[in-house]
Amino acid sequence: MSPEANTAGRRTRLTPERERELYGAVLDLLTEVGYEALTMDAVAARTRSSKATLYRQWKGKPELVATALRQCKPVSPADIDTGSLVGDLHELVRLHDANEVKRDQELMRGLAHAAFRNEDLFRALRELLIEPELASFRELLQRAVDRGEVDAGNPARDFVPHMLFGAALARPIIEGIDPDPEYSHRYVDVVVLPALGLS
Amino acid sequence: MSPEANTAGRRTRLTPERERELYGAVLDLLTEVGYEALTMDAVAARTRSSKATLYRQWKGKPELVATALRQCKPVSPADIDTGSLVGDLHELVRLHDANEVKRDQELMRGLAHAAFRNEDLFRALRELLIEPELASFRELLQRAVDRGEVDAGNPARDFVPHMLFGAALARPIIEGIDPDPEYSHRYVDVVVLPALGLS
Repeated sequence: MSPEANTAGRRTRLTPERERELYGAVLDLLTEVGYEALTMDAVAARTRSSKATLYRQWKGKPELVATALRQCKPVSPADIDTGSLVGDLHELVRLHDANEVKRDQELMRGLAHAAFRNEDLFRALRELLIEPELASFRELLQRAVDRGEVDAGNPARDFVPHMLFGAALARPIIEGIDPDPEYSHRYVDVVVLPALGLS
Repeated sequence: MSPEANTAGRRTRLTPERERELYGAVLDLLTEVGYEALTMDAVAARTRSSKATLYRQWKGKPELVATALRQCKPVSPADIDTGSLVGDLHELVRLHDANEVKRDQELMRGLAHAAFRNEDLFRALRELLIEPELASFRELLQRAVDRGEVDAGNPARDFVPHMLFGAALARPIIEGIDPDPEYSHRYVDVVVLPALGLS
């Protein structure tokens, strides 16, 4: 179910249901106490697991947190397939914003802050959360290239993740409010698509 | 020199040189200890001022910090006037990135984190730093409209600050590295200008 979570060649002892429950508990704890104060002891207690199991399965706190965040994503970009880039991007931001409630915004901000002060967390988030999401997103874009919607050499192509993610990060600072589905939909229409030569 | 810093109708007791020195000291302290641990006592001691002067001139810590950040900016966007939008945007990111050393990135990240947990700081940063910068940036864009470079009704116009700021915020997370002048220059060329219908 979640190959990233398991050390290669070692069989998992947890069922997929149990894994999902555990990831949910990690995110709850993260929301409650923040990354710094989160302990593997607390995760073990909350989920009635042994610490040995947690360390065997996820190596450490940074890897467990990064994997929990990835596994709790509602959908992978590559799985969205409406038949057109505009449809895919609208669906992507709709699914993302629908799940991005206030709690998650605060959680991600706290985590970003922790990651810039903690190299292990930074590396785990990049390897286990961000890089796989980007690879999945590149599949979505590649389909648009294959359909002839976007030129393979379009220079804006590599910047689409920066545009989408940057729009979400910038709005609270520039407008003082969090992104919402209307905002992100409009940003796709008036920035992302024209930058890619579509509009 | 810095009308925002003074309560309307009340004359400043500090010379512009003394103000600049004080703002520099505030940013040094901010870098050293972070926003939460920064005290008006420490600012008074570091700058050999009285706390009464600091409170009379800046009202409180959030206002002093926000004003110091604004006054230490190397240049206001509206003051950049190369004669073309592409020239202005290239010059803007060049000046910004040249001054954005590692220390400043960390300072701004710490401050953003504090601002999302402290309403007074959030409000002061918006009123005294972000809104004036945005107003100044809108002047730069308005000149492009007046020159006929950008259509007055172009829907991407309102999003240019989101694009530029978002690009800087997103790169460390997406690529694991800070923005630099080449990156920002390229982002202007392949995202901002095409979104505005120029390229």
